[in-house]
Amino acid sequence: MVASLAPAAADHAEAEAFRAGMLARGLLLPMGVPGLFGRGPVFEDVIERFNALVSEVSREDHAEWVHFPPLIGRHLLERVNYLDSFPHLCGSVHSFFGDTLQALALAERAKAGGNWGELLGPTDVVLTPAGCYPVYPWLAGTLPPQGRCVTLLSWVFRHEPSAEPTRLQSFRMREFVRAGRAEQVLEWRERWLQRALGLLGSLGLPAEASVASDPFFGRGGRLLASEQREQKLKFEILVPVISQREPTAVCSFNYHRDHFASIFGIRSTDGESASTSCMGFGMERIAMALFKTHGFEPAQWPPAVRERLWPSVPA
Amino acid sequence: MVASLAPAAADHAEAEAFRAGMLARGLLLPMGVPGLFGRGPVFEDVIERFNALVSEVSREDHAEWVHFPPLIGRHLLERVNYLDSFPHLCGSVHSFFGDTLQALALAERAKAGGNWGELLGPTDVVLTPAGCYPVYPWLAGTLPPQGRCVTLLSWVFRHEPSAEPTRLQSFRMREFVRAGRAEQVLEWRERWLQRALGLLGSLGLPAEASVASDPFFGRGGRLLASEQREQKLKFEILVPVISQREPTAVCSFNYHRDHFASIFGIRSTDGESASTSCMGFGMERIAMALFKTHGFEPAQWPPAVRERLWPSVPA
Repeated sequence: MVASLAPAAADHAEAEAFRAGMLARGLLLPMGVPGLFGRGPVFEDVIERFNALVSEVSREDHAEWVHFPPLIGRHLLERVNYLDSFPHLCGSVHSFFGDTLQALALAERAKAGGNWGELLGPTDVVLTPAGCYPVYPWLAGTLPPQGRCVTLLSWVFRHEPSAEPTRLQSFRMREFVRAGRAEQVLEWRERWLQRALGLLGSLGLPAEASVASDPFFGRGGRLLASEQREQKLKFEILVPVISQREPTAVCSFNYHRDHFASIFGIRSTDGESASTSCMGFGMERIAMALFKTHGFEPAQWPPAVRERLWPSVPA
Repeated sequence: MVASLAPAAADHAEAEAFRAGMLARGLLLPMGVPGLFGRGPVFEDVIERFNALVSEVSREDHAEWVHFPPLIGRHLLERVNYLDSFPHLCGSVHSFFGDTLQALALAERAKAGGNWGELLGPTDVVLTPAGCYPVYPWLAGTLPPQGRCVTLLSWVFRHEPSAEPTRLQSFRMREFVRAGRAEQVLEWRERWLQRALGLLGSLGLPAEASVASDPFFGRGGRLLASEQREQKLKFEILVPVISQREPTAVCSFNYHRDHFASIFGIRSTDGESASTSCMGFGMERIAMALFKTHGFEPAQWPPAVRERLWPSVPA
């Protein structure tokens, strides 16, 4: 589960200058809500090219592509017990189920600036809190001996409105999910950690790996987080974006043991629950790390970085 | 506003056979919720190629690309008075604002299969109901003499769960928004209508244009719909997908007069409110129309259609 990218306590002035610079150059477009931005074509091109590069360096994974909308079934959120750990981050989709008279009251309430949300009821869907969630039910059944590897690019939602530019409410993760025997999965995670460090290094990013934990909610959450750190279930790769002292997580690696496999019935050939792991790049944070490190003008980026992202067509 | 693609009353057996065929071949992936599917790589490739083709045939528009997340600010939905017309389709995002004790109650309620949604409160964001909405505030100001044209590919939400495979809750629209003087905008819409008919025809789709209306809510809505038809503010292009008798809207064209321009302050050089129009392709419906018309195996599609979507690289 890529349930979070670690918070980076920002150097406020540096963060604000970076945000203002991105907006002034049309890399980001304002949407009037903290943590919600449009993306201009230059910003988007960097994401597109980095995404292609990830596909290129991961060819030996022979990953199967899948594509999911930015929503999952409410039942899936319940099944993984998401609310036990991250109630504050969830995005539940509500709509209107009333008649004509109630619709008039709803529209009136909205025009008067009132809380019209409370006149709605929950639908069958919620915003995707982690790109990999819809993959697990789809993997249900017995795996082939070599296991499976799946990749996807997915919109993810986190309810954490913030003026801090790397902390978005809605962003994309390029993820890989590996299912198989524990040793296959752990070896894969270790290989990906090195591969990701190499990839980010080749783009001139001062990337460093670190043991990490998810932002579990409340007092009980602290215990879960320290257990997660102790068992090294989660790693992150960090790059300075809005603060040199507190670098930003741009990539995360999670080992779930048999947590998801046992819930969804993903089995090894021996009939036992398989193990799963996932890794993912926070695409907007990768782009921001590049703009922070090399400047706001991709045309001025170091030639080696440009050649890696936009390889010249051989003559 | 592409607020809806007209409902197509389905031939039930034909719709069900088509849905089952798409799922059996992994073109769509089940997600356990009506109107919510994953997309397999073959389905996605068709969308990607069609999207590239749209860019190619629209080059003379010199459209500016923008990219928005699947969410917009709640204030934007209020500002365009969405709830007056489509309360039943809205997707309001709610989250948890309580303390540790309330979080325990929330998790308990979810585990007991209860309505945990009512323990949440509305956030600052809602799901994007029409891809073009975030474009209008961004266009605020005085337009250049030739006006502006903007294009985007956006995830759109409609709360209309249905077993009918073309009626998705979450789907993508490739849209174009044109802002300028009324005659510029109307001429552009007419040109795009012919261009879209030509494009779909070149893909072997039996496409037909028709005057249309949005699915306004309630009794008052019928009046709005008939006024919209009378003034020919909305056109759709229809292709049979799940029913020959009731073809499916795959493309829609809307003329807004100065509705959005006056709300958001989009002005012509003379200082008057500009006019706006938008057009959009329902990408999943286009793909489904192709699979329905030419069969489930793109390798077996007519050579002319294949060459149009996957042009061979010149030797």
